[in-house]
Amino acid sequence: MAGGVFRLTHGLSVERTSEMLGVCYYPEQWAEARWADDARRMADMGLAYVRIAEFAWARMEPREGEYEWGWLDRAIETLAGAGLKIVLGTPTATPPYWLIAKYPEILPVGIDGRQRGFGSRRHVSFSSAVYRREARRIVDAMATRYGSHPGVAGWQTDNEYGCHDTARSYGDLDREAFQVWLAERYGSIEALNEAWGNVFWSMEYPDFGAVGLPNATVTEPNPSHALDFARFASDMVVEFNRAQTEILRRKSPGRFITHNFMQRTLTFDHFRLAEDLDFASWDSYPLGKLEVIFDDDRDAELKRTYARVGHPDGPAFHHDLYRAMGNGRFWVMEQQPGPVNWAPWNPAPVSGAVRLWTWEALAHGADVVSYFRWRQPPFAQEQMHTGLHRPDDSPDFGAEEAMRVAEELKSLALEPTAPAPVALFFDYQTAWTYEVQPQGRDFDYFRLCFDWYSAVRRLGIDVDIVGSGHDLADYPVVLVPSLAMAEDAVWQRLGRRTKTTLYGPRTGSKTLNMGIPETLPPGPLAETLPLRVLQVESLRPGVAHTLRIGNRTGSASRWAERLETDLDADIRFDDGTPALVRKGQQRYLACWPDDETLVDIMTDLMRDAGLEPALLPDGLRLRRRGSITFAFNRNSQAMEVPAPAGARFVVGGRTIPNGGVAAWRDE
Amino acid sequence: MAGGVFRLTHGLSVERTSEMLGVCYYPEQWAEARWADDARRMADMGLAYVRIAEFAWARMEPREGEYEWGWLDRAIETLAGAGLKIVLGTPTATPPYWLIAKYPEILPVGIDGRQRGFGSRRHVSFSSAVYRREARRIVDAMATRYGSHPGVAGWQTDNEYGCHDTARSYGDLDREAFQVWLAERYGSIEALNEAWGNVFWSMEYPDFGAVGLPNATVTEPNPSHALDFARFASDMVVEFNRAQTEILRRKSPGRFITHNFMQRTLTFDHFRLAEDLDFASWDSYPLGKLEVIFDDDRDAELKRTYARVGHPDGPAFHHDLYRAMGNGRFWVMEQQPGPVNWAPWNPAPVSGAVRLWTWEALAHGADVVSYFRWRQPPFAQEQMHTGLHRPDDSPDFGAEEAMRVAEELKSLALEPTAPAPVALFFDYQTAWTYEVQPQGRDFDYFRLCFDWYSAVRRLGIDVDIVGSGHDLADYPVVLVPSLAMAEDAVWQRLGRRTKTTLYGPRTGSKTLNMGIPETLPPGPLAETLPLRVLQVESLRPGVAHTLRIGNRTGSASRWAERLETDLDADIRFDDGTPALVRKGQQRYLACWPDDETLVDIMTDLMRDAGLEPALLPDGLRLRRRGSITFAFNRNSQAMEVPAPAGARFVVGGRTIPNGGVAAWRDE
Amino acid sequence: MAGGVFRLTHGLSVERTSEMLGVCYYPEQWAEARWADDARRMADMGLAYVRIAEFAWARMEPREGEYEWGWLDRAIETLAGAGLKIVLGTPTATPPYWLIAKYPEILPVGIDGRQRGFGSRRHVSFSSAVYRREARRIVDAMATRYGSHPGVAGWQTDNEYGCHDTARSYGDLDREAFQVWLAERYGSIEALNEAWGNVFWSMEYPDFGAVGLPNATVTEPNPSHALDFARFASDMVVEFNRAQTEILRRKSPGRFITHNFMQRTLTFDHFRLAEDLDFASWDSYPLGKLEVIFDDDRDAELKRTYARVGHPDGPAFHHDLYRAMGNGRFWVMEQQPGPVNWAPWNPAPVSGAVRLWTWEALAHGADVVSYFRWRQPPFAQEQMHTGLHRPDDSPDFGAEEAMRVAEELKSLALEPTAPAPVALFFDYQTAWTYEVQPQGRDFDYFRLCFDWYSAVRRLGIDVDIVGSGHDLADYPVVLVPSLAMAEDAVWQRLGRRTKTTLYGPRTGSKTLNMGIPETLPPGPLAETLPLRVLQVESLRPGVAHTLRIGNRTGSASRWAERLETDLDADIRFDDGTPALVRKGQQRYLACWPDDETLVDIMTDLMRDAGLEPALLPDGLRLRRRGSITFAFNRNSQAMEVPAPAGARFVVGGRTIPNGGVAAWRDE
Repeated sequence: MAGGVFRLTHGLSVERTSEMLGVCYYPEQWAEARWADDARRMADMGLAYVRIAEFAWARMEPREGEYEWGWLDRAIETLAGAGLKIVLGTPTATPPYWLIAKYPEILPVGIDGRQRGFGSRRHVSFSSAVYRREARRIVDAMATRYGSHPGVAGWQTDNEYGCHDTARSYGDLDREAFQVWLAERYGSIEALNEAWGNVFWSMEYPDFGAVGLPNATVTEPNPSHALDFARFASDMVVEFNRAQTEILRRKSPGRFITHNFMQRTLTFDHFRLAEDLDFASWDSYPLGKLEVIFDDDRDAELKRTYARVGHPDGPAFHHDLYRAMGNGRFWVMEQQPGPVNWAPWNPAPVSGAVRLWTWEALAHGADVVSYFRWRQPPFAQEQMHTGLHRPDDSPDFGAEEAMRVAEELKSLALEPTAPAPVALFFDYQTAWTYEVQPQGRDFDYFRLCFDWYSAVRRLGIDVDIVGSGHDLADYPVVLVPSLAMAEDAVWQRLGRRTKTTLYGPRTGSKTLNMGIPETLPPGPLAETLPLRVLQVESLRPGVAHTLRIGNRTGSASRWAERLETDLDADIRFDDGTPALVRKGQQRYLACWPDDETLVDIMTDLMRDAGLEPALLPDGLRLRRRGSITFAFNRNSQAMEVPAPAGARFVVGGRTIPNGGVAAWRDE
Repeated sequence: MAGGVFRLTHGLSVERTSEMLGVCYYPEQWAEARWADDARRMADMGLAYVRIAEFAWARMEPREGEYEWGWLDRAIETLAGAGLKIVLGTPTATPPYWLIAKYPEILPVGIDGRQRGFGSRRHVSFSSAVYRREARRIVDAMATRYGSHPGVAGWQTDNEYGCHDTARSYGDLDREAFQVWLAERYGSIEALNEAWGNVFWSMEYPDFGAVGLPNATVTEPNPSHALDFARFASDMVVEFNRAQTEILRRKSPGRFITHNFMQRTLTFDHFRLAEDLDFASWDSYPLGKLEVIFDDDRDAELKRTYARVGHPDGPAFHHDLYRAMGNGRFWVMEQQPGPVNWAPWNPAPVSGAVRLWTWEALAHGADVVSYFRWRQPPFAQEQMHTGLHRPDDSPDFGAEEAMRVAEELKSLALEPTAPAPVALFFDYQTAWTYEVQPQGRDFDYFRLCFDWYSAVRRLGIDVDIVGSGHDLADYPVVLVPSLAMAEDAVWQRLGRRTKTTLYGPRTGSKTLNMGIPETLPPGPLAETLPLRVLQVESLRPGVAHTLRIGNRTGSASRWAERLETDLDADIRFDDGTPALVRKGQQRYLACWPDDETLVDIMTDLMRDAGLEPALLPDGLRLRRRGSITFAFNRNSQAMEVPAPAGARFVVGGRTIPNGGVAAWRDE
Repeated sequence: MAGGVFRLTHGLSVERTSEMLGVCYYPEQWAEARWADDARRMADMGLAYVRIAEFAWARMEPREGEYEWGWLDRAIETLAGAGLKIVLGTPTATPPYWLIAKYPEILPVGIDGRQRGFGSRRHVSFSSAVYRREARRIVDAMATRYGSHPGVAGWQTDNEYGCHDTARSYGDLDREAFQVWLAERYGSIEALNEAWGNVFWSMEYPDFGAVGLPNATVTEPNPSHALDFARFASDMVVEFNRAQTEILRRKSPGRFITHNFMQRTLTFDHFRLAEDLDFASWDSYPLGKLEVIFDDDRDAELKRTYARVGHPDGPAFHHDLYRAMGNGRFWVMEQQPGPVNWAPWNPAPVSGAVRLWTWEALAHGADVVSYFRWRQPPFAQEQMHTGLHRPDDSPDFGAEEAMRVAEELKSLALEPTAPAPVALFFDYQTAWTYEVQPQGRDFDYFRLCFDWYSAVRRLGIDVDIVGSGHDLADYPVVLVPSLAMAEDAVWQRLGRRTKTTLYGPRTGSKTLNMGIPETLPPGPLAETLPLRVLQVESLRPGVAHTLRIGNRTGSASRWAERLETDLDADIRFDDGTPALVRKGQQRYLACWPDDETLVDIMTDLMRDAGLEPALLPDGLRLRRRGSITFAFNRNSQAMEVPAPAGARFVVGGRTIPNGGVAAWRDE
């Protein structure tokens, strides 16, 4: 898919409802005598896919060059023999001890300058040429042996790239690789010095070999330096993955390739990596990740409210994000089935939540939802992570809910997902830009996007999340919460839009070199929206501007911009300066409004675009797949869903409890 | 005492009330001309014991092998000559510079991987064979010279093991010693891989030399790895101490050996170490340690309330804990005499508090309470730590209170301490288990035990704290706040109980390998209480379950378990699942209730056991020693003590102020 | 000025109002073609001074020994040609890459033991003899070339010593330099051991080569050790600076030498460094630094109130502090002109704030206020730091305000600053003492001084800040918030005062060796005020003593002392012990009172001294310069200024808005 503009071609996937559930399984962790029974019970409960092998390198190659395939041969035969389709994981997230002992230089180095050791996982630097060679070797060996096995449906590369903050490593080999990367990007050291503005503070380098890593300077490094390091680190992950997909394409024809991404992981460009995949998967832990998304002191109440069912827009946002990376297809490769072990607190889901999460994924277009994991292990790091079965093999609460979904799916034909009326533009490079230079401590790009997304979802409207490579022409509404910088082609594509478009603060605020545009922000966007950002300010909690919206008022916190423009203003700051300006259907929002004001803004926007926004009660959300509308209730009260009078319910009914799901066909 | 089951044989100690107070003294820090006067005044104010020498290595052996005993000979003569009994401290907490310069490898390494240096104290790793040899050498020299001196009553080994978080060191020699320890424990690397479940994440080791320390992994290490390291570190402290006691037993016959433990120090097994002592001592700093025990954001109010008098159960808990280690005997080796220097804030005790603390220790069975220190030094790290005298030698406020106690003791015969009706089971290995795997950020084992202890103490009932080696048969009530894992013999001893017993959450939740029991928690306890823990959850502050207790309600926060059982439930969660179940007099509590509910539970329990619980006002506590009942008031108001009508007061009277003490004999 | 007692000889400077504004400029960062226009516009808008070159080493000497002066020659000609007076900065805060590559050992080492690298600024240790040699070389080269240039008015040494916490470095060369410094201070290791009290904890050293740095001990180092390291580090900065001023004095006769200090930087003794300067400058960032001064949790409300205009006493305190270092003269070398980039949040100043800050500096006696910087750079670390012009060269909001001040200055003759009636004693050594040994977490010396200062300023009274070298005889009131220790001569000078003097807590609490005085605190002050401090306590937030002041009450938090004295007490603690005692006009305050009580105390004090305190409304402040009284309004409301009925307004009028300034002559 390199080079072109992507279009979300929804509906490529085959929606066979008998093949929409799966599970993760670790045969190497259980006595071989149990495998056959496990496989049979998987099939019996309606699971079609089983992912295996992604942490089993030490069992495949216990000593350098000595492969032991026997156990894996038998495991695959057993699972396939039960009718299960196998997803094989490449085991490169867990190199065995002998490999580390032989090449200790591949161990990663933290931002604190300390090298990490063996004894958990992800103990490698993505920059290491030696490790890439070793990774290719084991992937090649697996693909050679299993690439054409009829039971193997597809591949997962590695596991959760970037997990445990490992996308960036700060060792000597990383420094060397970074220097090579810089030399390629800039051609000459003079060009780098110029691009970074190294005349500032006498930071000019005589050659590429002089450039260090940005983690040990006395005070902050040059932001261009830091951004380039973020880009470099992202490229290393992408290249590492591509080294595997090239082998798998060649040696395992006809099988899909995916990777299981992680929620809110911004340290590498998922869109670029996904270009080498058939579709993206992701690992959905709605409770555990509640802490991660809502990490602001102001979020304590919200975290208490949704502690046992997850945020109403948390999984949904990621379904929509990862669906974009597969042109309409995605999997949930790991679905939380009960309490986990790794969050600061690990509550139990409310009754029904596992079913809700499964249906929600399907409603958002998932091909497959795969539970993590078949059985809770009684040992090692994840022994307190529930599975579908307890360590004593009794079915856990999640298993009952999974079986209920499997049963419900039998009587339901799921159609393909249609494009949503609203596209939200998400950009990893922008995330790095504001990470490097937040300007205000709580200017969090992910949160900004999430707040915009949530405001639209509270209005009952579906959203596609798109990236810089996507075609945006046909969307009735495009939302760009912020786009710090982009290639010219992206600005041009955006500039050609005549339909409703809303740009958020800091859009066009940076050149590709991480500088300020010559004409000031919003840089290239000024061709579409003639304005100049004269001043920006970040605001500590408790400091806010009043907003005037017709005869209503709202407030802006975190961020505000002073615009110079002749455009009409729909919203103004208290002092009369414009806060939301427009030119035709193009709008620019110069602040971070409160949630209710944001909903008001989105309501106006949707109406202008001819959509029908209708504010949902707290915790209730809707999502359409084909002709079916789904409703999900995370309100602590039972809720009536907003189905039309003659709706034919195919799941649940008109009133659903907390954790409840309803679905109906519009007649 | 190795091998057997211990019984708290209270009353071994001779309760000569004229020999119940002592003081810590540093002759090397003062001009020799002052010693005689100091000694005379000690004796005059009623102090019987004086501890010396524990930091004076540099003065005993200023250069390698060159001993200078003269000053210490004269100090001992002077003190003994005044009739004082001397406790000699071995100086191994402060090796001199020349020793570190010669053997720099013995310096400890922090969990951050940085080696610590000379210039304060405890700058050694317990794993170092070289340091053990040097420690034996200086102890042998001291014991040879003073072991039979008639003025020497006993020995203190080292000083405050584990202080400044030094029980665990992470250097190369620690790694090597850990590998040796593992080889001894597991016999073969295959056994270790199996026990730890190293098949998980390909963590299998080829040999013991491959196993690293658990402080530098990318993400959390295997919990079995972390727990074994905690066990290893504890063993190193025990072995280090034993190397000294072996010499002292041989060279100083008839003298007691003790060690001064520290409050809330959980990094080594005090019970095991104390097996090599005659009795345990501890260092009681009620104000300074208030911050340490109550380290939760929710405790701010409590810390303000008790800022100047200490928590009503803080010292008491430790008196009862350390009494267990000496079979009914213990000392307070260092008693806070006024404001200290090392807490985040260092308020002055309310008037009377030093007397209260002294009497409280005696009421809980202390043989001796020894004040730290005779005179506040005008230099070095502890110059802001008050003593009985100010740096100008004027008596400080604490001295007046100490003298008052000495006076009061003259007219009071103290009987031995009787066993309490309630035993609370305390277990270091369980503390490490939950430290390694808290599952919820605020699941703090010490706090759990403390909350249970406090609930009983608020009811006016005395408590013995016991360990896994104690005989529990005769106690009317045994409380096990949690016991993660234990040897079979312990479970059997507990299982034989027919009297009132309450087990708390997570009891039996782990095997000795730090895995989940095959039959699920509560593992071996299920033989006593037939139930299975189907699910556990940890809850962030503000998230709680409602509890139904008859027609009262309460709440459970931090932790809750879903039980499967046919047992009767005295308390249920809001959804009807059992929260407190029982079989005869054996009970299991599946949550962490609020303080008032815990008091209610304990009230019921005590009544069932035939005791007479009576809720005391806030800040008031009772404690019996022989036929005397003591009352201690930490309420900001004056309080009337609950003495019977005809009580004969031997200390104070019926109404006592904040900081006040009363004691009466039941007639 | 070495050796003598300083007297604030106000009014030395020439107050030519046409030469009171300046700007910082970086010709090396802009195309040469723009220089002439920039220079012309600077002159046109009323700027007289331009500071250049302080970060341009890499352009002056791009390769070792290869100087390129051409560009700087032309820049100087261009600026001077436009009539601007040039301040040349020595570039030693930013050594170029080649210097670091050749001498990597000069890189500083953090308190965490990690060496810092190239890529920002201040990447050097002040202890390095090699770096001093290199610094002297470049300074000599600059001074040789430009020292007699008629356009060069003066010099700034280096830039913001101590910024980014760089005054202290913890590397091998620092250790060696520290050992040399100690040998010089103590003469023999025995003297050091005695002075530090190293007998404590067996810390005695055999020779100076054994003494390490205080950053890697197991627990806190000896406080004498830590204080000496702080003194040493301060001396290194002073020596480093002196190496430059010696050259500049010789090679650039008739030019002033200054340094631009930073707000609230306490890691070196500014008074001692300033002895080598003609006057001190400082860099004033009223919004950004609000976070730094008010770093207590209790300050959130205050930070919200003043987020956009700065604390009413923040800049004022520093004007008064730095004025002391130039005997009545000072500059603001960098004045915040709009939002900056480096604070946690960076709001925009209210309209008028830049003008207010400028006038405030002038009112406090500034010779020159120089804005940072001419134009905001579109690249590198400070690209989000506003200047007088935006990156597109349009004038930013601050430029308009600067031009307004320039215009207002034309019609106003500014007289010299007269000595204030109140002197507040500020002492860096005391700051280090309490940093080393706070005893209570929130005992912050700077804050203590600031609270006292603020209390007087709220009463409308001007304050001089003085140091231990100043003559205090003539001041009607002298305030000593705390003076931990001092040379005898200082105590004698203070002791000779008969006019109103107030000493705060902990005064005289330490000997020069960082021990407790033999006679207890307040040590030498007891000759003036016969009292002994029997006990001190620090109090956690929420714990306070009630104070009795006549029939009013107040409260004391953070700190309280128990005094023994026969002196009269004006204020007592609730238990009757004295809190504020006096002997004639000498007073001692034994606690840290609440703000309102402190204002009451200062009111009484001022009245006793014959001054006329009058409490100002929140946010309003006054300041006199010659016959003009200035008023500054930071209240969110418009305020009426307390001008007498017949006042003739020369700036503004009787009512001024938030951010407003008024000035009037008393008739």
